[in-house]
Amino acid sequence: MDQSNSQSTLFRSDNVTAACPEVMDAIVAANSGGAASYGADRWSARLEKTLSGIFETEVAVFPVVTGTASNALALSALTPSFGKIYCHELAHINTDECGAPELFTGGAKLIPMRGAHVRIDAEGLASAIQGRGNVHHAQPSTLSITQASEGGTVYAVAEIAAIAEVARAHGLKIHMDGARFANALATLGASPADMTWKAGVDVLSFGGTKNGCLAAEAIVFFDPAAAEGFPFLRKRAGQLLSKMRFVSAQLEAYLSDGVWLRNARHANAMAARLSAGLASQEGVELAYPTQSNEVFVRLEEAIVARLKAAGFDVNGDELDGSAARFVTSWNTAPDDVERLLAAAAGPPGDT
Amino acid sequence: MDQSNSQSTLFRSDNVTAACPEVMDAIVAANSGGAASYGADRWSARLEKTLSGIFETEVAVFPVVTGTASNALALSALTPSFGKIYCHELAHINTDECGAPELFTGGAKLIPMRGAHVRIDAEGLASAIQGRGNVHHAQPSTLSITQASEGGTVYAVAEIAAIAEVARAHGLKIHMDGARFANALATLGASPADMTWKAGVDVLSFGGTKNGCLAAEAIVFFDPAAAEGFPFLRKRAGQLLSKMRFVSAQLEAYLSDGVWLRNARHANAMAARLSAGLASQEGVELAYPTQSNEVFVRLEEAIVARLKAAGFDVNGDELDGSAARFVTSWNTAPDDVERLLAAAAGPPGDT
Amino acid sequence: MDQSNSQSTLFRSDNVTAACPEVMDAIVAANSGGAASYGADRWSARLEKTLSGIFETEVAVFPVVTGTASNALALSALTPSFGKIYCHELAHINTDECGAPELFTGGAKLIPMRGAHVRIDAEGLASAIQGRGNVHHAQPSTLSITQASEGGTVYAVAEIAAIAEVARAHGLKIHMDGARFANALATLGASPADMTWKAGVDVLSFGGTKNGCLAAEAIVFFDPAAAEGFPFLRKRAGQLLSKMRFVSAQLEAYLSDGVWLRNARHANAMAARLSAGLASQEGVELAYPTQSNEVFVRLEEAIVARLKAAGFDVNGDELDGSAARFVTSWNTAPDDVERLLAAAAGPPGDT
Amino acid sequence: MDQSNSQSTLFRSDNVTAACPEVMDAIVAANSGGAASYGADRWSARLEKTLSGIFETEVAVFPVVTGTASNALALSALTPSFGKIYCHELAHINTDECGAPELFTGGAKLIPMRGAHVRIDAEGLASAIQGRGNVHHAQPSTLSITQASEGGTVYAVAEIAAIAEVARAHGLKIHMDGARFANALATLGASPADMTWKAGVDVLSFGGTKNGCLAAEAIVFFDPAAAEGFPFLRKRAGQLLSKMRFVSAQLEAYLSDGVWLRNARHANAMAARLSAGLASQEGVELAYPTQSNEVFVRLEEAIVARLKAAGFDVNGDELDGSAARFVTSWNTAPDDVERLLAAAAGPPGDT
Repeated sequence: MDQSNSQSTLFRSDNVTAACPEVMDAIVAANSGGAASYGADRWSARLEKTLSGIFETEVAVFPVVTGTASNALALSALTPSFGKIYCHELAHINTDECGAPELFTGGAKLIPMRGAHVRIDAEGLASAIQGRGNVHHAQPSTLSITQASEGGTVYAVAEIAAIAEVARAHGLKIHMDGARFANALATLGASPADMTWKAGVDVLSFGGTKNGCLAAEAIVFFDPAAAEGFPFLRKRAGQLLSKMRFVSAQLEAYLSDGVWLRNARHANAMAARLSAGLASQEGVELAYPTQSNEVFVRLEEAIVARLKAAGFDVNGDELDGSAARFVTSWNTAPDDVERLLAAAAGPPGDT
Repeated sequence: MDQSNSQSTLFRSDNVTAACPEVMDAIVAANSGGAASYGADRWSARLEKTLSGIFETEVAVFPVVTGTASNALALSALTPSFGKIYCHELAHINTDECGAPELFTGGAKLIPMRGAHVRIDAEGLASAIQGRGNVHHAQPSTLSITQASEGGTVYAVAEIAAIAEVARAHGLKIHMDGARFANALATLGASPADMTWKAGVDVLSFGGTKNGCLAAEAIVFFDPAAAEGFPFLRKRAGQLLSKMRFVSAQLEAYLSDGVWLRNARHANAMAARLSAGLASQEGVELAYPTQSNEVFVRLEEAIVARLKAAGFDVNGDELDGSAARFVTSWNTAPDDVERLLAAAAGPPGDT
Repeated sequence: MDQSNSQSTLFRSDNVTAACPEVMDAIVAANSGGAASYGADRWSARLEKTLSGIFETEVAVFPVVTGTASNALALSALTPSFGKIYCHELAHINTDECGAPELFTGGAKLIPMRGAHVRIDAEGLASAIQGRGNVHHAQPSTLSITQASEGGTVYAVAEIAAIAEVARAHGLKIHMDGARFANALATLGASPADMTWKAGVDVLSFGGTKNGCLAAEAIVFFDPAAAEGFPFLRKRAGQLLSKMRFVSAQLEAYLSDGVWLRNARHANAMAARLSAGLASQEGVELAYPTQSNEVFVRLEEAIVARLKAAGFDVNGDELDGSAARFVTSWNTAPDDVERLLAAAAGPPGDT
Repeated sequence: MDQSNSQSTLFRSDNVTAACPEVMDAIVAANSGGAASYGADRWSARLEKTLSGIFETEVAVFPVVTGTASNALALSALTPSFGKIYCHELAHINTDECGAPELFTGGAKLIPMRGAHVRIDAEGLASAIQGRGNVHHAQPSTLSITQASEGGTVYAVAEIAAIAEVARAHGLKIHMDGARFANALATLGASPADMTWKAGVDVLSFGGTKNGCLAAEAIVFFDPAAAEGFPFLRKRAGQLLSKMRFVSAQLEAYLSDGVWLRNARHANAMAARLSAGLASQEGVELAYPTQSNEVFVRLEEAIVARLKAAGFDVNGDELDGSAARFVTSWNTAPDDVERLLAAAAGPPGDT
C-alpha cells in the first residue's frame, strides 16, 4: 500500500525522501544534447577527478544505482568464490540484500560476527578468522564494515585502523559499506582519506541515495590497478547504465559546494535532537548511542501506541527485533521532530 | 574520450540521446515529498495498471534500469541453471551483455543460431532444439527473440507465432527482448497484445531508455503467477531501487498520451529517410531491410572517408563486422539526416 | 606428509580406513565385462530397489562419490538461489565444505544456529526463521540436520519430528546429512523410515564412505517426483560417473547381509568403550555425550602430551577448538582402544 | 535399460568397459590399513612425482573422478567469470557436460567454433577472437582443445603449437581436454611434454577412465604456481575424495610399466582395423579420418539394419547427427571387430 506523501513515511527511512534540489537541478541540466554512453561522458570523467581530489589520492570510480549492487560488486572484486567475508551479523550485506553478495561473488560465504552497537571490534575479528590453508574451509578473504553502521553508530578512525590491522595481518582485503558515509564523516569531522584508505580500506561503497541523490552510488577503488577486471563485473551485473551521465551528474552535484556534508549534518542534527528528546522521556531506552542519522530506541507499549495513534510508523521489526528505528534525512523538518517527541510524550500530565 | 554534444554522437546509438521532455518533467514532478520505497509507491502501482491496460491482460511488472538487467533477469525467471536458451547469434544477450544471462541464470547456456537479417525462423529453431532428456546435454528451456531485432528488422506477428509454436511444442518458454519494442510496434501497427502474449510470449523485456526515457526498463510477466519468486531475483541482482518511484514515473509518462509511439514513429521515419537516401547512392548496400530505427549499410571506402571527414561516427565494428550502423531516435533532426546524406554523397559532380 | 599405515591415523577419522572386505569384493566382482554407463547398469537399478525396500517407500537414488557433493547437491534440489538454509553452526555443510553448498545452490545462504551438543532444537529453529516474504531477505527455504551430528550425538526420532514440524510450518524443505546415518540408526534401533521420511525428511544424503565403502554416497529422494530435474544437477556437478556400476556395487554390498549395520555397531561399541574409559580418568571431560562413533573430550595438557608421546594424533582443532576428537570405525581394533586408554592414563602410579 | 555384458555395449563407448587388471590390482592392494585422507597419502605423493617425470617438468596434480569435473575445474582455474572459452562446437565441454563449465567458472561463456574433422585451426581461432577490452563483451580468456578430438582425430604437435601461438598472442590461457590423451600420444609417437606444455598448454585434463581405469582423471598444471587457489576450487566442487589413495593408486598403476600406452595402442589398432574394414565396404563413408580409437562412419540404411539385426548398437545420434560412432578400447577383442565387419558386409553375395 502506498503511503506516499503522508506522515507515515516520516522517519521511516532515508530512502523515502525526494532528491535534494541541487541533485535534481543537475539531472535536468544534464538532459541536454547527446552524450557518449556507458560512462564515456564528461560528467563521469569529472566525477572521478572530483573524488580523487576529495580522497587525496587517485581513485577508480564506478557509479551504480543501488547500495546492494554497490556492496555486492565491491565484494566480488575482493573475494574469490571460495572466500569468506567477515561482517557484523546485522550488516546490510548479511541481512538485507537477499543474497546479492553470494550471487555476485559466485558463492562466497559471509561470516556473521557479533559486536556491541552493531560494530565489530579488532579482538572479535582476530578470534573469528580461522581456517586459512585448510582445504575444507572457505578461505578468509575479506572484511566488510559499515560506516555509519546499521545501528547508527560510527567507528572512530582509530577503530577502523585497528580492525584493518588485524584484517591485513591475516591477508584480508577491506571493504567499507558507506551507504551513510557522509553522515559518519560529519560526525567524526575526519577527512575522507583518513576514514578510508589511510586507515586500510581497499574499496568503498560510497552512498549518495540516502543523503539527497535520486539513485546514485559509487564504488571507489583506492588502488586503481585493483580495478582491472571490474568494468566487466559491473557490466555483467547489469549496472552499467547507458545514460550514465545522469548518475554521475547526481554525484557531481552532491559533492559540489559541500552539499553532501551539509545534508548529512542536518540529518545528524535532527537525529541528535530526536534522540535526546526521546531519551529524556520515561519508558524510552536508547538501544545504541545515536552517532549519525538513525535513532534506535526500545519503547514502552504505551509510547508505541501513542506514536501510532499520531500516525507515525514504528517499525520495530528492524535489526534485532526489539528496537524501533527512526531515521532522519537531509530534509527532515525540525517541526516534525518536535511533533514526534510530543506524540511520544503524550498530553501534559498523561503519565 | 567524451564526445558529448558533438556531432559525432549523432546516429551512433539511441542511447546517446537525452530523455524526452515528458519523461524529464515526470521525474521532476515525482520529486516531491516522501514516498514509500522499493516500489511500494503510487507511481509503481499505477504503472502496473497502465501496462495491464495496454496489454489487455493482467500483467506483473518489475521496473529495472538497464536492458542488460532486464533481459538477464527475465531469462533467469524462465530458465533453470541447466537450461539452454536459444537465440540469434547476434542477439544482444549473446554478444553485448558480458555474460549477464549466464550470471543471473546460474550458468545457463546460450545456443547461438544463424538466421537471415538477424532474425531466427521456425525451421531453424526446430532443427536446433536437441538433447531433451539426455542427461549430458543442457536442457532446452527458453527461446529469446528480439523485437525489433539487432539488425533493425522486425518480426511479423505471424512469424512470432510460428516460432513460438515450435518453441511451445518443445516445451520452451518464450522471452522477447523489447529494447526497441515501441519501434517494432510502430512499424507493424499491431496491438501490444498481438505482438506478445497472444503470439506466445511469456515474459517481455519492455524498453524505455532507447526511446526517450532516462533509465527505465520493465520486465513484464503475462502470467503474474509465474512471477512468484521474481521479486527476490530482482532484489538480489541489485535492481530493486529504493526510490523506485523515479523509474516508474518515467515509464508512466512514456506510456501516457502516446509519447512512446510518437517517439518511435519519429525515429522510424528518420531511419526510413536515411535508409532510402543512402540506398539510392552508388557504393551503398543495405545490409538488412530498414524496418525500425536502425540502418545497416555496407559502404565503399570513399563514403566512409567522406562521412568521417564530415565528423560522423562510422561504427563499422557493429554486429557482423562489415556493416556500418546508423541509429535514429526520438529527437533526430531531419536536417541531420540530410547532412549525413549530403556528406555521404560528396560534393556535386564528385563521383 | 603421509602418515599411512602408521598408528597416527588410528582414531583420526573414519575416512582413513580401508574399505571393508564385502565392499571390495563387490568392486572386484563388478569388474567383469561391459556395462551400460552413466548409471544405466544393473547394479544401479538394483540399488534403487534395495533402498526402496529398506526405506519402505519408493525412493529415487543418485549415487555420488563424496559427502560434500552429496550434501551440496541435495541442498541444490531443495533451495532456490535466493533461499536460506538453516543448520547448526558446526554443521559440515557450514564449516567443512569450502562453500560447496553456495556453489551448487547458486548462492543460497546458510544460516548458522547454535544448539547444545551440536544439535539444533525446535525452539531455536522457530526463533531463527525470519524474513519470509520480505524482499530484502533471503527466503527461508531449507533445514539441514546431521544424523549422527558432527558432535557424535544423535537426534531421537521424536526430536527430528519436532524440528521437522516447525520447519514444515514455515514452508521449509528438510535435508538430512547422513554421512554417519548407519551409526545413528544403530544407536537408536529405529527403522530407516522412522528416522527419515516418516519424521519429515525430504532428501537424505546417505553415507557409505565413512562406514566401510571406498567412495560411495547416495542422495535419496523420498518423493521421486521431486527429483525431476536432479539428474541434470548431478551431471553438471561432475558427479555422474561413467562407470557408475562401481559406486552402486559398493552400496549394494554395503546394504546386503547387514554389513552396514554390523560395521556401524562395531564402530559405536568401540567408541562407547573409548568414551567410558576416558571419562573415568582424571583430567578428562566429555565435551558431548558419546552416541555414535565419535568421542569428543577435553583433555588436560599432560594427557595430550602422553598421547602424543605414544604416537596418537590429537586433533584438538576440530569443531569448537577445544575438544579433541577420536573416531572409531568398522575396523577399529579393541586392542587399539585399550592402548589409547593406557597411554592416556600413563604408567601406573603416574598421576 | 541395462544392457550390461551383452553384445550391444561393444563399441558403444570406451566407458562401458571394465577396468584393466593392473588398475584393479592396484585398488585392491591399496585397500590395506589406514592412510591419510584427502590426498595426503603416499599414492598421491608418488603420482605427482611420476607425472612430473613423464612430463619432464614439475607439475601440480589434482586427481578427480569424472572427465566433466576435470574439464570444468581446469577451465575454472583459467577463466574469470566474465571470460570467453573458445572451443570446437562439438567439444565435449560444449555439448556433453550439461553446463558444468558454466557452473564451475561462475558463468563463463563458451564460444563454439567450426572446424574440419572436429578440430579447430589457427586461422579460425584468430578470426573468432573478438571483443578484448570492450566492456559489453565477455572477455577472451581461454582456449580449449581436445586431444584426441571428439571426432577421433588427432592434432599434430605443430598444429597445437600453431593454435597455441595465436591464443598466446591474444592473451588466452590454454586447456587441453585429454580424455583420450594416451590414444593421441600413441598415434603421434610424441613425448607427453612435446604434446602439451612445450606446445603451449597450461593445464591438461589427463584421462584415465576411458583407457583402463575405474574412475580416475587428473588435472595437471604445468606451472604449479598457477594452482595456488585450485585446492579450494576442487574441494568446493565435491571432487576431493576422502579416500583419495584409491584414485591415485589407479593412475599410478595406469602409468606404470607402460600400461597406459599399451592399452591405447591396442584400442587404436582395433579402431584402425575396424575403420579400414568398414571403409572398404560399399555404402560406408568415413566421416573423419580414424586417428585414435573412435571410428565415425556414414552408413547406408541397409548396413545399419544389418548391424542392428546382429545385435550391434548403432548410435547415429552422436556428434553431428549423421555419423555413427564405434569406439574401441583397451580390451576390444579382434574377433568382435571381425564380427562387426562381417555383420556390416552381410552374407556373401548379398549386395
